Amino acid sequence: MKTYNLALIPGDGIGVDVTDAAIEVLGAAAKDRFAFKTTTFPWSCEYYLEHGSMMPDDGVETLRGFDAIYLGAVGWPETVPDSVSLHGLLLPIRKAFNQYANIRPHRLLAGVEGPLKTEGFDILCIRENTEGEYSGAGGRVHQGKDNEVAVETSVFTRAGVERILRFGFEQARARRGLLTSVTKSNAQKYSMVFWDEVTRELAAEYPDVTVSHMHIDAMAAKMVMAPQDLDVVVASNLFGDILTDLGAAIQGGLGFAASANINPDRSAPSMFEPVHGSAPDIAGKNIANPIAAIWSVAQMLEHLGEADAAAAVLGAIETATGKGIGIRPGLNTTQEITAAVIAALEA
Amino acid sequence: MKTYNLALIPGDGIGVDVTDAAIEVLGAAAKDRFAFKTTTFPWSCEYYLEHGSMMPDDGVETLRGFDAIYLGAVGWPETVPDSVSLHGLLLPIRKAFNQYANIRPHRLLAGVEGPLKTEGFDILCIRENTEGEYSGAGGRVHQGKDNEVAVETSVFTRAGVERILRFGFEQARARRGLLTSVTKSNAQKYSMVFWDEVTRELAAEYPDVTVSHMHIDAMAAKMVMAPQDLDVVVASNLFGDILTDLGAAIQGGLGFAASANINPDRSAPSMFEPVHGSAPDIAGKNIANPIAAIWSVAQMLEHLGEADAAAAVLGAIETATGKGIGIRPGLNTTQEITAAVIAALEA
Ligand SMILES: CC(C)[C@H](C(=O)O)[C@@H](O)C(=O)O
Ligand SMILES: CC(C)[C@H](C(=O)O)[C@@H](O)C(=O)O
Repeated sequence: MKTYNLALIPGDGIGVDVTDAAIEVLGAAAKDRFAFKTTTFPWSCEYYLEHGSMMPDDGVETLRGFDAIYLGAVGWPETVPDSVSLHGLLLPIRKAFNQYANIRPHRLLAGVEGPLKTEGFDILCIRENTEGEYSGAGGRVHQGKDNEVAVETSVFTRAGVERILRFGFEQARARRGLLTSVTKSNAQKYSMVFWDEVTRELAAEYPDVTVSHMHIDAMAAKMVMAPQDLDVVVASNLFGDILTDLGAAIQGGLGFAASANINPDRSAPSMFEPVHGSAPDIAGKNIANPIAAIWSVAQMLEHLGEADAAAAVLGAIETATGKGIGIRPGLNTTQEITAAVIAALEA
Repeated sequence: MKTYNLALIPGDGIGVDVTDAAIEVLGAAAKDRFAFKTTTFPWSCEYYLEHGSMMPDDGVETLRGFDAIYLGAVGWPETVPDSVSLHGLLLPIRKAFNQYANIRPHRLLAGVEGPLKTEGFDILCIRENTEGEYSGAGGRVHQGKDNEVAVETSVFTRAGVERILRFGFEQARARRGLLTSVTKSNAQKYSMVFWDEVTRELAAEYPDVTVSHMHIDAMAAKMVMAPQDLDVVVASNLFGDILTDLGAAIQGGLGFAASANINPDRSAPSMFEPVHGSAPDIAGKNIANPIAAIWSVAQMLEHLGEADAAAAVLGAIETATGKGIGIRPGLNTTQEITAAVIAALEA
């Protein structure tokens, strides 16, 4: 029986609540399939207030040896600006470990009602996760003066664009064979025209995949008007970020949106985290929806090669939601939802 | 009786169809309220293929003397890349005439059914229209090589950010007093942190306006999950672009989304255009929905000080849609919809 070494970073706010829930479910899924050991790291905004940094200098190196990283949520804007907390923990891990593929599935779970009249969609968003609009390059000149100028530079490398698109083509091939590449090449004539070119080059290698090019504005509209036409969607860091919150919305809310930060060549650990943030207003109240976090556990199991366990977790989630558990905010506590998923797993 | 001098740029594809419709309606609205003269400029992708540029070198100067500019749509990607056609016509006009406020209203017209289960929203999106992510600054290094890098720089000036936010605060004051400023300051720590700072500074001058700060990803989700909570939304060029296509989607589609490119200090003409593009696939078929284009005429009349005529046009649109005319693609021809609006105007 394999034993997995997992690093847990519960982080801030409801990150802690949902990580607890996720790991309970992981325990039930392990059964006689596999074993796991967890090491919990207290890196968070609280940690920052005490130590002046979100994690120790050797934080990233400490994580390198693990089989996977599970993260709850990061951020507590009342005391630490998000620009500090996220650039101090979440974003550097994604970059350092080349977790360049951020995978986010969007479909309605059994029993869940979304805000759209349409229901039958099944989208896999693949977001570039290491460069682009969140490269962190930029600066401010004449700060505080009337003539102040702030610049922020998106940086796209050929290797970076190629690998995420290639990953998308492979996923499309394994699904319904449709890939939508999202840019804004009519207005951003360097970065996005470049992305379009690379897409066209790669398309020649995947004649079995149907490629469609869309601008981010039209794509946002499409997610709402005809999401059933979409299969695999590949987008830059920012565009993927926006589309996956939109995806979360159409699947009933952020409480249902799972996310995997994958290093496909496995040269470093991958990281799994729900899309939602730390939600300070509901932290510690036992009311956060743990389903996104639990779904992210299923993604982690899939990545570790435990396909059976992954399917069992996903099935258990839908058994619970199919019975109406956790399908609307305020309906059930975090514990009730977790217990229902575990009961379904053990049944 | 005042006479307005209007420049018409029908542009490409259905831009031509809907401009015809819009000007017919304008004629009916004028009645004994005002007179107008139109001068039509053939600047378009066809013009480009003949002349090597989207408009003559002195194109912008030619437009300067007009009271307003009406534009249909620009782009014909099969023959001219969008990055060329838009940077050659639409974007330079917006910049040259300091049309920094792009105003886009989002609500369901009478009779129109949107894709959301929710219906009662009334949002005014105000998009920065001259700088930011569409500044056009950037470049490509090692083009075509394995080590290629493309960069695209967003440029935000204090004057640019201040004036659009101030415009937003004024609009919020005249409406329900709620302003939502949209950034992504947790990931873009130069440009968007700067925007947040300016928002906070100005908020002090408008104590009667309630300000809320949202990230673009969460905002996209909110447009779908709780649009009824929004009033005035102010966003950068790119974020406003995305949110207004999303706004168009929730109001039933791009056929209903109007847009005004306003120079608030009136030092140069403003420009009015539907949000939709040239839609080559349905061009010239008499099936484009002219309602967005006609609504943009109402915005133009409002801007020219013809509030009565503007209200009459908007009322006539809703009389028509209230009767079910033009509320779904394929239901009526462009001409039928136009005729119904004119009939309502004349009734
Ligand atoms: C065509 C394109 C350049 C334009 C824009 O992004 O400004 C359009 O999408 C719009 O919203 O007016
Ligand atoms: C918190 C933020 C920096 C993060 C991101 O934009 O990457 C989040 O929105 C996400 O989608 O994972």
